[in-house]
Amino acid sequence: MVEQSLLEQLIEALRCMPGIGRKSAQRIAHHLLQRNRDGAKHLSKIMAQAMENIGHCQRCRTFTERPICELCESSKRDNSMICVVENPSDVDAIEDSNYRGRYFVLLGHLSPLDGIGPEDIGLNQFQQLLDDEELKEVILATNTTVEGEATAHFISEMVKAKGKQVSRIAHGIPMGGELEYVNSMTIAHAMDGRKLI
Amino acid sequence: MVEQSLLEQLIEALRCMPGIGRKSAQRIAHHLLQRNRDGAKHLSKIMAQAMENIGHCQRCRTFTERPICELCESSKRDNSMICVVENPSDVDAIEDSNYRGRYFVLLGHLSPLDGIGPEDIGLNQFQQLLDDEELKEVILATNTTVEGEATAHFISEMVKAKGKQVSRIAHGIPMGGELEYVNSMTIAHAMDGRKLI
Repeated sequence: MVEQSLLEQLIEALRCMPGIGRKSAQRIAHHLLQRNRDGAKHLSKIMAQAMENIGHCQRCRTFTERPICELCESSKRDNSMICVVENPSDVDAIEDSNYRGRYFVLLGHLSPLDGIGPEDIGLNQFQQLLDDEELKEVILATNTTVEGEATAHFISEMVKAKGKQVSRIAHGIPMGGELEYVNSMTIAHAMDGRKLI
Repeated sequence: MVEQSLLEQLIEALRCMPGIGRKSAQRIAHHLLQRNRDGAKHLSKIMAQAMENIGHCQRCRTFTERPICELCESSKRDNSMICVVENPSDVDAIEDSNYRGRYFVLLGHLSPLDGIGPEDIGLNQFQQLLDDEELKEVILATNTTVEGEATAHFISEMVKAKGKQVSRIAHGIPMGGELEYVNSMTIAHAMDGRKLI
């Protein structure tokens, strides 16, 4: 077999990114080589550093290169609320709204068939957070999948056992969404969650 | 100003790739950190190597880390034809058809207003290739833009002056294309290029 050219290797390697197929990888490789070698060298350096140094926050488990993440260290957050999410990207999504409480990131969801139990999603660590006297409410913002719902249910039992409030974020029609394009499951949720006006 | 976190820096750096906006960069960064750190480390290494070592073939100007690229070195190619293209990615596109001649990559097109003249697109080097006695035909496959057409015209004069054949690849309706979605320029070309059956 002929050894792969460096360009071929680059195109192959670029495909480790989600949503990047062979054609996009080719286009990216050519673009970087022709127009932005400096940007690519910088990316290569930062990527190596990031993969080596970014770990998880000891308190909320989100991504950070420090022992405790910036959000957890901030003194401006509301300690009475913790929002539980599946992934670090969910934190970014919720930060864009005006929630100002704490977070806890599961890094997954319960999935007994795959051998993912409570400890694998950090619930022993979460149990300790529940001991905090300042904490009044846990908001469950796991995904609306079967696993996400089961995980939310499991955690709600833990929280109730500690005598704290627990809530699930509302599911319904997205803002600006047109009814005819929303699936029936969502509409059923929106009906159940209707409010008197 | 607070120093940017490593994750923020990674997301910013990923945006040097074409077609990757902030949301995609975020998604890619999270995916790599959570699921494929090894792939990302490998990509980082290959990318640094590629940006450092990939240059241009001394004969056809395409990307390669060697002095002469694999295609130019191959003894199985037809020396009687050279296909002239604007970008290295055009070579890949044409390789997927069954053309088996040589290539010449301009790495751009003539653009006097931007100060890009014949030497900047390697035409002095191309002139030497025209001296090859084996060469019978030059196929112009520059883009169908104003600059691409002007460049094709300029090169065709060079080739004719050497008494060799010169041709332009056919423009027309793409295979599988539906007439109603094809622009009028393309239809005009297709009409001009019609063949008796």
